[in-house]
Amino acid sequence: MSRSHETLDATHDPALRSWVAAANTPSSDFPIQNLPFGVFRRHGAGDAQRCGIAIGDQILDVAALTDLLHDAALPAARACAAPVLNELMALGREPSSALRAQLSKVLSEDAGAQARDAVRAALLPMTDADLLLPVRIGGYTDFFASIHHATNAGRLFRPDQPLLPNYKHVPVAYNGRANSVRVSGVPVQRPCGQVRPAGSDAPVYAPTTRLDHEVELGVFIGRGSAPGQPLGLQEAWQNVFGVCLLNDWSARDIQAWEYQPLGPFLGKSFATSISPWVITADALKPFRTAVAARADEDPAPLPHLRDIEDQRSGGLAIQIEASLRSAHMREAGLPATRLSRSDTSTLYWTVAQMLVHHTSNGCALDTGDLLGSGTVSGATPDALGSLLEITRGGAQLLDLPSGEQRRFIEDGDEIVFTACCEAPGHVRIGFGECRAAVLPARTSERSAGT
Amino acid sequence: MSRSHETLDATHDPALRSWVAAANTPSSDFPIQNLPFGVFRRHGAGDAQRCGIAIGDQILDVAALTDLLHDAALPAARACAAPVLNELMALGREPSSALRAQLSKVLSEDAGAQARDAVRAALLPMTDADLLLPVRIGGYTDFFASIHHATNAGRLFRPDQPLLPNYKHVPVAYNGRANSVRVSGVPVQRPCGQVRPAGSDAPVYAPTTRLDHEVELGVFIGRGSAPGQPLGLQEAWQNVFGVCLLNDWSARDIQAWEYQPLGPFLGKSFATSISPWVITADALKPFRTAVAARADEDPAPLPHLRDIEDQRSGGLAIQIEASLRSAHMREAGLPATRLSRSDTSTLYWTVAQMLVHHTSNGCALDTGDLLGSGTVSGATPDALGSLLEITRGGAQLLDLPSGEQRRFIEDGDEIVFTACCEAPGHVRIGFGECRAAVLPARTSERSAGT
Repeated sequence: MSRSHETLDATHDPALRSWVAAANTPSSDFPIQNLPFGVFRRHGAGDAQRCGIAIGDQILDVAALTDLLHDAALPAARACAAPVLNELMALGREPSSALRAQLSKVLSEDAGAQARDAVRAALLPMTDADLLLPVRIGGYTDFFASIHHATNAGRLFRPDQPLLPNYKHVPVAYNGRANSVRVSGVPVQRPCGQVRPAGSDAPVYAPTTRLDHEVELGVFIGRGSAPGQPLGLQEAWQNVFGVCLLNDWSARDIQAWEYQPLGPFLGKSFATSISPWVITADALKPFRTAVAARADEDPAPLPHLRDIEDQRSGGLAIQIEASLRSAHMREAGLPATRLSRSDTSTLYWTVAQMLVHHTSNGCALDTGDLLGSGTVSGATPDALGSLLEITRGGAQLLDLPSGEQRRFIEDGDEIVFTACCEAPGHVRIGFGECRAAVLPARTSERSAGT
Repeated sequence: MSRSHETLDATHDPALRSWVAAANTPSSDFPIQNLPFGVFRRHGAGDAQRCGIAIGDQILDVAALTDLLHDAALPAARACAAPVLNELMALGREPSSALRAQLSKVLSEDAGAQARDAVRAALLPMTDADLLLPVRIGGYTDFFASIHHATNAGRLFRPDQPLLPNYKHVPVAYNGRANSVRVSGVPVQRPCGQVRPAGSDAPVYAPTTRLDHEVELGVFIGRGSAPGQPLGLQEAWQNVFGVCLLNDWSARDIQAWEYQPLGPFLGKSFATSISPWVITADALKPFRTAVAARADEDPAPLPHLRDIEDQRSGGLAIQIEASLRSAHMREAGLPATRLSRSDTSTLYWTVAQMLVHHTSNGCALDTGDLLGSGTVSGATPDALGSLLEITRGGAQLLDLPSGEQRRFIEDGDEIVFTACCEAPGHVRIGFGECRAAVLPARTSERSAGT
């Protein structure tokens, strides 16, 4: 694919407004310039789940609109009749790009009355549907792309050598557990596991007391790569369908006891939450930015991970806010309190570098695979994407506006991530939210501690 | 499920012989007491792939036999029309047990002429079909259940503390890459990756020079477990469909450079080979054995991992042989040379303990998930399941009968695993083989080393 495919298209025109009024509100996550894909099921009626596009406060039932569409957009729209996005994603970038471009015309203020009528019949209010897990996820890989997070977490274990020698050469990652991924809104039950109480040699099986969130960006693979065929940096974005928010829930005590020598396992595999709307690679284009975290004196990446254009424009300017609202705060009518505001432009490794590294040994990436960025933490104290970092491993108490305090997440706490992209001359696009409340551990295990 | 379901059934009767003559040869892997499941595609004819059972040197096309079957065996036989075993596996143990029991009758010497004629029409010689990947694998988890392997591998990195403090408490595991799994016969291409040459601070991207095999047992999950519902030790075998041989190909140099702090990733994800026939949990019952590796002075496992019956009969007496045949040996007509002969009865953790641990944080196991045991190494020098252990990290040369020597696996080498179960009063059952030859790295990368 040539670079020209990566240039801006008409769907980014900041003057474009939609006849769907809510899409034009400056605070709307889903203006006509966004048009993310998701999977919905209409309330009642026993409808099957299918793929839709978000516009303002509405969901567009894309597969109902095939009469209005033509050329490359047609197979894309037909694929939206499926119960997950995988069929659409497997088509590669061009059909969904064409679909978004044609939909932006019929949704725009310039659309004629006939087109508006047809589209209107295919709209339903978001409040009339459930949003479901949008993708059948084959493989889930979690990276470690924030050098700030790697340094902060490393410092807790190795004060003298927070960052390991491979960090600036290898986009470090591990395989996550794909069936742990749930859509926003599904509660997370506090997991039990083996933990070693302070001062003891022997573990107990008990509910985690160090439950944490991790602010991450999720990246969905569209067209897959073939086994034995590593991707190149310049082509890698063609294999990206889009992105979402991801909460890599972590039980720090389970993780600390289990992780040597083979890495995280049960400390992470109990739950992973993602936001329901997949923001397309096309919609993100205006928000591609330079990589800032790689210092001039850092070692140059190996040739297959080095590309001047990727360093100039392979970063993503996505601001992610994490907030917490305790059960007490909800009861008292207090709003959620912000835990952090971080930015994916501070990541050390780019999305393209992640894909290239992942396939560099011949491993295939398949349609529907999910890559997590790793915790997105910035350089400042207000940009720390986990409680592990905010409370320094639980050593410092975090004050909540309710008068409560936290070292880690308590039962009843709700963690919410929101995100948006902003850039001069462009309409802001949002991500919706990634939300989950924490339920108590199973009763039998709460009592059976040791 | 009650324990009674785990007792021996008629299919284990050592007096049972089949009218399929090759099944009665003492060396046959597939006597009437075995009847493992696999997926085949008949040569030519453009036939679709479907599920079959091995008997002697024949494959039984089970779905073609529904007229002969009844009750619980019927849905099992119908599920065998699918292109993978998942549908059959999802039914749970009872239907496939009933299917095997009924098939053992119509395959036995006591079967009447009419039944024989019907079965004969559904048989095809193994030489007339390709055996394919039998299962659509959702999650692949690799354990570390051999204390001998953990000690041997640990000694190379930590001579003073080969075994980490968690080993005797936690059935350590990590998430593998499910799409790396291929069926026996598919060649393995030497992977490239980041490796750090001795004495250098900086890595290069180059073909691995430390390619290794790992002898493992693979365990397939049949009926899945529900999220948030940990399995108990006494019920865990009801979720096991069967087992296979597994070669966890490893690039030791890539692994050594990448694995801190998050564990193995690209050093393992380029290829995982499995044998095509799934030996059922039912067929294994006579070969359940006591756990020998856990010493009396070892710490008792936590209550959820402790069960006296599991320690008495939760081990598996499966002998696995690994052999190597170089390209030169093939050309010279020399047979493969044995690398090791190990036994899964030496594992520290049982299959049931693996399932219980895996689900102990609420993580679900899904139908079609694959668990690897980790490298099966015994206490003796002839029972080491990887070249890492045989050559002590490449420090000692291994002499081949051809006059060649090996530290690690070279291009053109073929690695073959075979296995069988033997016990007094029982007919030997075999596993078939897990075979793969190593192809050179991609040309462009062989030359572009640094």
